[in-house]
Amino acid sequence: MSKSQEVEAFGWACRDPSGVLSPFKFSRRTIGDQDVRLKVLYSGICRGDIMMSKDYRGREIVGVVTEVGKKVQKFKVGDKGGVGCFVGSCRKCESCANNLESHCPDQMSIGTPPYIDGMIIHGGFSDHIVTDEHFVFRWPDNLPLDSNASLLSAGITMYSPLKYFGLDKPGMHIGMVGLGGHGHLAVKIVKIFEGKVTVISTSLKRMRKLLKVLVLTHFWSVVQIALDTLDGIIDTVPAVHPLQPLIDLLKTHGKLVMRGGPLEPLNLPVCSLILGRKIVAGTDLGGLKETQEMLDFAAKHNITTDVEVIPIDYVNTAMERLEKGDVRYRFVLDVANTLKTT
Amino acid sequence: MSKSQEVEAFGWACRDPSGVLSPFKFSRRTIGDQDVRLKVLYSGICRGDIMMSKDYRGREIVGVVTEVGKKVQKFKVGDKGGVGCFVGSCRKCESCANNLESHCPDQMSIGTPPYIDGMIIHGGFSDHIVTDEHFVFRWPDNLPLDSNASLLSAGITMYSPLKYFGLDKPGMHIGMVGLGGHGHLAVKIVKIFEGKVTVISTSLKRMRKLLKVLVLTHFWSVVQIALDTLDGIIDTVPAVHPLQPLIDLLKTHGKLVMRGGPLEPLNLPVCSLILGRKIVAGTDLGGLKETQEMLDFAAKHNITTDVEVIPIDYVNTAMERLEKGDVRYRFVLDVANTLKTT
Repeated sequence: MSKSQEVEAFGWACRDPSGVLSPFKFSRRTIGDQDVRLKVLYSGICRGDIMMSKDYRGREIVGVVTEVGKKVQKFKVGDKGGVGCFVGSCRKCESCANNLESHCPDQMSIGTPPYIDGMIIHGGFSDHIVTDEHFVFRWPDNLPLDSNASLLSAGITMYSPLKYFGLDKPGMHIGMVGLGGHGHLAVKIVKIFEGKVTVISTSLKRMRKLLKVLVLTHFWSVVQIALDTLDGIIDTVPAVHPLQPLIDLLKTHGKLVMRGGPLEPLNLPVCSLILGRKIVAGTDLGGLKETQEMLDFAAKHNITTDVEVIPIDYVNTAMERLEKGDVRYRFVLDVANTLKTT
Repeated sequence: MSKSQEVEAFGWACRDPSGVLSPFKFSRRTIGDQDVRLKVLYSGICRGDIMMSKDYRGREIVGVVTEVGKKVQKFKVGDKGGVGCFVGSCRKCESCANNLESHCPDQMSIGTPPYIDGMIIHGGFSDHIVTDEHFVFRWPDNLPLDSNASLLSAGITMYSPLKYFGLDKPGMHIGMVGLGGHGHLAVKIVKIFEGKVTVISTSLKRMRKLLKVLVLTHFWSVVQIALDTLDGIIDTVPAVHPLQPLIDLLKTHGKLVMRGGPLEPLNLPVCSLILGRKIVAGTDLGGLKETQEMLDFAAKHNITTDVEVIPIDYVNTAMERLEKGDVRYRFVLDVANTLKTT
């Protein structure tokens, strides 16, 4: 694609090792037959934005369609749409055939491998984005725009394992380890599933603080553990931590689902798994079909993410605060109202 | 129960720290209303017999019924029966209600916690055993007695996770790590399920040796790994070993099922689990219903354990050889023909 076919775009990015983001100009591709162009309204900030390459951030995007390719069927100009982490997949492999595009070996994410045309897709810290309609979600009418961009990453990342691992049955008792952007959404989702939630924390002080802002069934500290009582645990802690006390909390056939992903290996007490035929699993994003299902589910049950809506020029402070865990529970950039394109 | 109500019994056991077994006299309870008495014909030797308390061994028992209590319904004198690891459970809890007696918190095993009447149940290295009929399996007519005692522990321990974790579908590709008493039965069971088996080993020499005695689809060494190709892995290795190369062999949603149970924790690479939503699970014995199903399945498909049938006075040598892994694949004591009760 020649430069002449590109469209000017504007956003915030970091282009040196400092990690500091600042305004910059770049370009988006022109609309292909199956592409839609979205004006970015809101863009969530997730931990992945800290960890990933620093110049293509923003993977929880809510926008309004401003242009559609001639073969586009799902959207018309004016429709609301959402774009999550990934914007391409091979659409031929077993994973794609099974609606598990996030596990496609040729999956293309915002900001990571080059897109099919060789370009890297810049994320939602920008004025607009161009994406194949296949990877754009229909935004339910009654789902608030500002407070739900995070559903596109945190929401599906919690909804999908609860469904996949059968932890979505009424009456199930689910433990939460780590109560941040992901964890607080998991609490809300489990409650809609009519499950019982217990948040497990090593810090009584932190627990009391959280208790004020989120109405939960239970809080346990590590000194209040109740062995063999949980059907499942969702663990979103990204740091090294012991698994033994968590495995001990699980019933027979209980499931410890890991999302935090510490880079160092954790100690796995295999005998404890054996005695109760317990499971330690990892979980990533869900596929396209399930993400749409989750958005519709959130709209139906009035699930909203607890967010702090911020202007785009606050993004560097927000990143710092996020790294310290200083947000209840998620930052969302008000892109449309605060991004100055001049 | 008074001593006068006990029945004289005879067996081999170890009663000092030497670990050496020798003949000894003890007693069994008289028959209760729901008990059966079995003359022990064959008794398998499993690794548990090395690890457990040394004076109550033998947890894979095949025998013939010689006496039945007045309320016994499942057996008559002359029937063949099998007794596995456990001989009692509460029969009231959730695990028991779900046919998972092996996970009942009050489960009673041969040689471990006291039985309901306060006695410890001696195992099958003896002339006879008395057990509630509920915990005795019907022995299928065409299932050889000598070569299948091991199904009662090793067999069900492999059959149950293959079923529970959905690794029993035709065409599935299952990796085996560790090819001993358990592993070689898993290979045979997977083949009946029309799965494909690949044995994974670090030793090419050992692989060649095994290849002569067991007809398998594939052998891989660790240098021949094929990433993302296995639906599941059954790992029976009791020593510390790396999990990363095994997890890497699994497809998306693949399952690494641990049976070996090293006492030291293993390193768990959580990020590798997350990326493919993979699972590391432990597995123990199956329940009573499933054990009977497995025996009937073995009879239907002519599954036999590859065993070395030995006289009871060879038991000390057999234990030593078992500890070194020097048996293809299981020892079975010919109790009825070699135990001298005088």
